[in-house]
Amino acid sequence: MRILLVGAGGVGSAAAAIAARRDFFQLMVVADYSLERAERAVSGLGDRFVAARLDASQADDVARLCREHGITHVLNAVDPRFVMPIFDGAYHAGADYLDMAMSLSLPHPTDPYTKTGVMLGEQQFGKAVAWEAADRLALVGIGVEPGLSDIFARYAADHLFSEIDEIGVRDGSNITVEGFDFAPSFSIWTTIEECLNPPIIWERERGWFTTAPFSEPEVFDFPEGIGPVECVNVEHEEVLLIPRWVDAKRVTFKYGLGTEFIEILKTVHKLGLDSTRPIAIGGGKSAVMVSPRDVLAAQLPDPATLGSRMKGKTCAGTWVKGKGLDGRPREMYLYHVVDNEWSMREYGHQAVVWQTAVNPVVALELLAQGVWKGAGVLGPEALDPVPFLDLLTAYGSPWGMRDQQPFRAVTQAAREEIAA
Amino acid sequence: MRILLVGAGGVGSAAAAIAARRDFFQLMVVADYSLERAERAVSGLGDRFVAARLDASQADDVARLCREHGITHVLNAVDPRFVMPIFDGAYHAGADYLDMAMSLSLPHPTDPYTKTGVMLGEQQFGKAVAWEAADRLALVGIGVEPGLSDIFARYAADHLFSEIDEIGVRDGSNITVEGFDFAPSFSIWTTIEECLNPPIIWERERGWFTTAPFSEPEVFDFPEGIGPVECVNVEHEEVLLIPRWVDAKRVTFKYGLGTEFIEILKTVHKLGLDSTRPIAIGGGKSAVMVSPRDVLAAQLPDPATLGSRMKGKTCAGTWVKGKGLDGRPREMYLYHVVDNEWSMREYGHQAVVWQTAVNPVVALELLAQGVWKGAGVLGPEALDPVPFLDLLTAYGSPWGMRDQQPFRAVTQAAREEIAA
Repeated sequence: MRILLVGAGGVGSAAAAIAARRDFFQLMVVADYSLERAERAVSGLGDRFVAARLDASQADDVARLCREHGITHVLNAVDPRFVMPIFDGAYHAGADYLDMAMSLSLPHPTDPYTKTGVMLGEQQFGKAVAWEAADRLALVGIGVEPGLSDIFARYAADHLFSEIDEIGVRDGSNITVEGFDFAPSFSIWTTIEECLNPPIIWERERGWFTTAPFSEPEVFDFPEGIGPVECVNVEHEEVLLIPRWVDAKRVTFKYGLGTEFIEILKTVHKLGLDSTRPIAIGGGKSAVMVSPRDVLAAQLPDPATLGSRMKGKTCAGTWVKGKGLDGRPREMYLYHVVDNEWSMREYGHQAVVWQTAVNPVVALELLAQGVWKGAGVLGPEALDPVPFLDLLTAYGSPWGMRDQQPFRAVTQAAREEIAA
Repeated sequence: MRILLVGAGGVGSAAAAIAARRDFFQLMVVADYSLERAERAVSGLGDRFVAARLDASQADDVARLCREHGITHVLNAVDPRFVMPIFDGAYHAGADYLDMAMSLSLPHPTDPYTKTGVMLGEQQFGKAVAWEAADRLALVGIGVEPGLSDIFARYAADHLFSEIDEIGVRDGSNITVEGFDFAPSFSIWTTIEECLNPPIIWERERGWFTTAPFSEPEVFDFPEGIGPVECVNVEHEEVLLIPRWVDAKRVTFKYGLGTEFIEILKTVHKLGLDSTRPIAIGGGKSAVMVSPRDVLAAQLPDPATLGSRMKGKTCAGTWVKGKGLDGRPREMYLYHVVDNEWSMREYGHQAVVWQTAVNPVVALELLAQGVWKGAGVLGPEALDPVPFLDLLTAYGSPWGMRDQQPFRAVTQAAREEIAA
């Protein structure tokens, strides 16, 4: 296996560091718009790693770099604006493709908070036939969320439930960052995209539909000491992926943003600073074009550099409600928690990016072994979850399960406590 | 009189339109970084008006343009970053100078919310001796606030009070802008500068000192139907100017921002978007440098273009407390209200910029007549307020006075109503 890893930011650098401890591949080319950043990411990882410069917005450049290095698998670790050129570039070069976020959505032009427009991943699924015909695999959404959360959904359907009413992904943390008024622990560009786009929901009777941002607030009690966090609907790939392969009546995604972050995002939107449309700054010939969202992202501290100031745990998981194998009502939360102290000590990467990065590396190893295989555009829930969950545990990062029914009472109490 | 008006934004364009109805000058050159904008400002105003291109950051360019047109008076109507090059350029060309905002402050390096650093206007007052020696006048802070507010302070001291305890400038409006989530009616660049810098206060015993942003919130009941608005301390030139020429125990400035605007400014600060330090956007050779505050300003609607969507009145005024000429306790609020409907109908310029722009034009006319004269760096309160207030009224924009004592009870009731 010869891998091209596109993007040497937080997630890309962590993926390279995780892969460096495994022997399933021969070469990993780490490519970034900034060669210096790519060089920093491969530094000290050994001679299977090579740094390269790449403009990820150019499919031809991606294909050229693949051919130059005989790449068999492209792992996309840049922000989702670049999904399509990297996806197409891999295809043209005859390589398989993996990403952790899917092609971007466009809201419905007249009815954005009810109807879907162009959906997340729709551009990629539109090319599924071509990928299948070429016997190439695009394994999309194989980070932690989407990714591990989808694998949990499939695992629940295969091994825990006879019938599923709702699959609700729930993400929350108690991470704090010392010394900053405001320092998100994940890409603000992507967080804005997720949180300010109309959230999407899937129901068996209705198909996909949208709601207003921050809808259906709920307090979810996260495990391993994280505790209750306010969660709201956000647009996320799981809602697009899970219903394609797993039978359920309803699929949702709620993100534990917390009240302060929600207010900040509302203000960012009010000021138009979520906009990705470039505007002119300055006058005459010296005017430059920038997008307000890029400026916001550049002004905030780089989340990948905050690890040593971060404290706490992050949890990704899937809450499944329905009937157990015995036909009786069942509710389970399948989850994965990473403690920042552990990921910093073990890998030198902060918890949120480490938790995202470990999953595509596990997936690549399963593909290298031939345990996972397929063709076309597939989500993680299209493949057998058991070997994945076992290998993830073997990487030193076990997952957990919690019978959710006793927690309903606790959650209700927590909700009242927060409301008080 | 031959005038160079620097800046064809909202205030500059309104000043040109107001001056066009008066015959006290021979020439007005309207100069802007964008020649197109300057041409738009002079269009239809007659042949005393000429448009020119000017880089206001270059003192030599300012001086060159002054010499080219035989300029006698430079009126600075751009944002306060450009005060020093325009001030110096006018001096070098032997012209008199007027502005509506003074040279910028720098917070105290270790104790910003208690001690002053470089104060507003300090760079200008540092050159007062040179201006005086050259027998040239720099009349600084002659907009509405500073400007008319300072003239009110001097009028109160000369004609209404025997002793003054406090002079507190209070600014508020009930202006709304239709069709925007958020659309400030004045330059956001300047508003951020005023509101996020440490507010300054003057006391006879203590001199100048600073506090934390948004300190000492108070509800002030504005006249002519505007009503109660939450006001907080902000950094403003009056506090620096008034104590130099008017005897008072304490001088403050509070701005009626309202609760929503205060929260937005706090978030802007938390995100670092108030910063004027340029940051790199994009990577490699295509990276461009922009300051986050410039991007925020460019993304929001231009306040000068909002007049037709605005509704309501804006009030600038000076609240004076002390002893009347009869030695008995007295409290008066001297104020000037502009109704947006009136300014749009009469001049085609919105109320907030019109109210700022009318004052330097009145001042220029008094200088042209020889009624006002002086040398050195002077604030508006250094000159006789009566001819100014009379001429302002003659311009069709009268001022008012309110005995403030009965309003203390009303204000207390309003404060309780808002708190409830």
